[in-house]
Amino acid sequence: MPVQNGRDVVVSEVGPRDGLQMVHVVIPTPAKLRWIAALAAAGLPEIEVASFVPPKLVPQMADAAEVTRFALTLPGLHVAVLAPNARGAAAAAAAGAHKITVTISASEAHSMANLRKPRAAQIEEVRAIAAALRDLPGRPALEAGLSTAFGCSLQGEVPERDVVAMAVELVEAGCDSVGLSDTAGYAQPAQLRRLVRAVQAEIGEKLDNLHLHDTMGLGLANVTVGVEEGIRIFDGALAGLGGCPFAPGASGNVVTEDLVFLLESLGLRTGVDLDALLRAREVLHEILPDEPLHGAFARAGRPRGWTAAA
Amino acid sequence: MPVQNGRDVVVSEVGPRDGLQMVHVVIPTPAKLRWIAALAAAGLPEIEVASFVPPKLVPQMADAAEVTRFALTLPGLHVAVLAPNARGAAAAAAAGAHKITVTISASEAHSMANLRKPRAAQIEEVRAIAAALRDLPGRPALEAGLSTAFGCSLQGEVPERDVVAMAVELVEAGCDSVGLSDTAGYAQPAQLRRLVRAVQAEIGEKLDNLHLHDTMGLGLANVTVGVEEGIRIFDGALAGLGGCPFAPGASGNVVTEDLVFLLESLGLRTGVDLDALLRAREVLHEILPDEPLHGAFARAGRPRGWTAAA
Repeated sequence: MPVQNGRDVVVSEVGPRDGLQMVHVVIPTPAKLRWIAALAAAGLPEIEVASFVPPKLVPQMADAAEVTRFALTLPGLHVAVLAPNARGAAAAAAAGAHKITVTISASEAHSMANLRKPRAAQIEEVRAIAAALRDLPGRPALEAGLSTAFGCSLQGEVPERDVVAMAVELVEAGCDSVGLSDTAGYAQPAQLRRLVRAVQAEIGEKLDNLHLHDTMGLGLANVTVGVEEGIRIFDGALAGLGGCPFAPGASGNVVTEDLVFLLESLGLRTGVDLDALLRAREVLHEILPDEPLHGAFARAGRPRGWTAAA
Repeated sequence: MPVQNGRDVVVSEVGPRDGLQMVHVVIPTPAKLRWIAALAAAGLPEIEVASFVPPKLVPQMADAAEVTRFALTLPGLHVAVLAPNARGAAAAAAAGAHKITVTISASEAHSMANLRKPRAAQIEEVRAIAAALRDLPGRPALEAGLSTAFGCSLQGEVPERDVVAMAVELVEAGCDSVGLSDTAGYAQPAQLRRLVRAVQAEIGEKLDNLHLHDTMGLGLANVTVGVEEGIRIFDGALAGLGGCPFAPGASGNVVTEDLVFLLESLGLRTGVDLDALLRAREVLHEILPDEPLHGAFARAGRPRGWTAAA
């Protein structure tokens, strides 16, 4: 979504999609809706509420259409969803999602292992999705999420030129925007700066989102550099929900509360109420009592005298 | 210590002093020496090995002189110690320490609460210490550690002009260098950049050290900005030893292993062997089995294909 309504930056909450998908617990739909409502009530401008994947593969997401329709009733919320393929994108569009993110691997090894198809075939799929969406009335925005952009746990380094070339092809294929995802948690500040600049040099502001992990403890350092390089949409997950498959006990996704604290400290208005985020955390704890909740802000509280950006 | 010997940056390990002081467990001296030897064997160029405080107040540091003398036998190690006052500084100098750090509060409230004297009296004490050290043969370097430089848990905001003014007075009082300490864990990247620039504008390269905490999850983001602003000495504690008094379960000091990983990722040679640091972690766990060990690198391991700076 564009930055607007008194915000300088967009925090995009991915907990209900990315977080829950990692948790492998099926939450009753009403509980999920209560949590999403609490997140929206905290002022989060965008929430990725569901993934339109086959329920057989991801039972947690069987209620994707119902959840999307509910989210559309929340005032002012930009409703984002994930779709792995053309069928999912069509279902997401039918449900009325404002934004559909398709994920594409920048790593050939990851692409073959996860999706059993080469990157070139992924690009073709995105082209078909874009074509199918093009003529829909009130069509959703189409974002490409370029996963393993900062390195891959299978192939190791992902060459910068591969990431840049794919970003260009995805825009040519009809994507409205491109995000870079640190799927493996490998991103480092100097690398991030180089890569963001290289991609911006080719597709400019169409690179608008960073999806960062905290695997190496560098999530917020990377956000800081991303802000300096002009990125204005950052993904986070409340309480770092979902953890990190490569690092038990560690946060995977950047913790939304800590992300908001950092951005406000940098003088960027998020529109998010930190106290209300802590209440959404309580709701999350009620519906997933066994899940560890991460986060420095929730643990340490506000620094004395600290004020949000104004 | 100056950056030298194939290093681009100095990681100064404070676990044996700052970490142990927080732990409130008295470790037998031989165990402590074994740990310090393991830290030095990992290539850490500087270790703060002890604090010359009255043993009645801090029993963990009763062996400060013995520990210092042992550390001086470790090849190439720059041996740093803390001293709270003139008496401690004299004892530290007598033991042969290479560097003596005196800590001074930038916050008047913190100064009165912790040391029961105003900041002006602290400056006078530092002047006396500098004068006493001046004529010693092979005199140790004198560093002022400006605590609560980024905010204070008692008074909240610490005005930037106070920090700058104190840095200037400390140099005039005879300190060789000044470090800024994020005692309360409040530092944020934008604030850090502003403060470092403001202090550098007055004392230049005499500002050479940052002692950062990870209370708000921003420790490594702050290091990243510090590097960009030209700082080349960073404190860390192995495994974040000592925790954070304001945030149970959280790391206080920046974790040395993660600090080294970040700096090497930024292309700065630390001279530190990460695998050897993990072995020093094992030694620490043997001597303090109940203490939680923090750190992302130890949990997640090296990213596939990652290499240190060359």
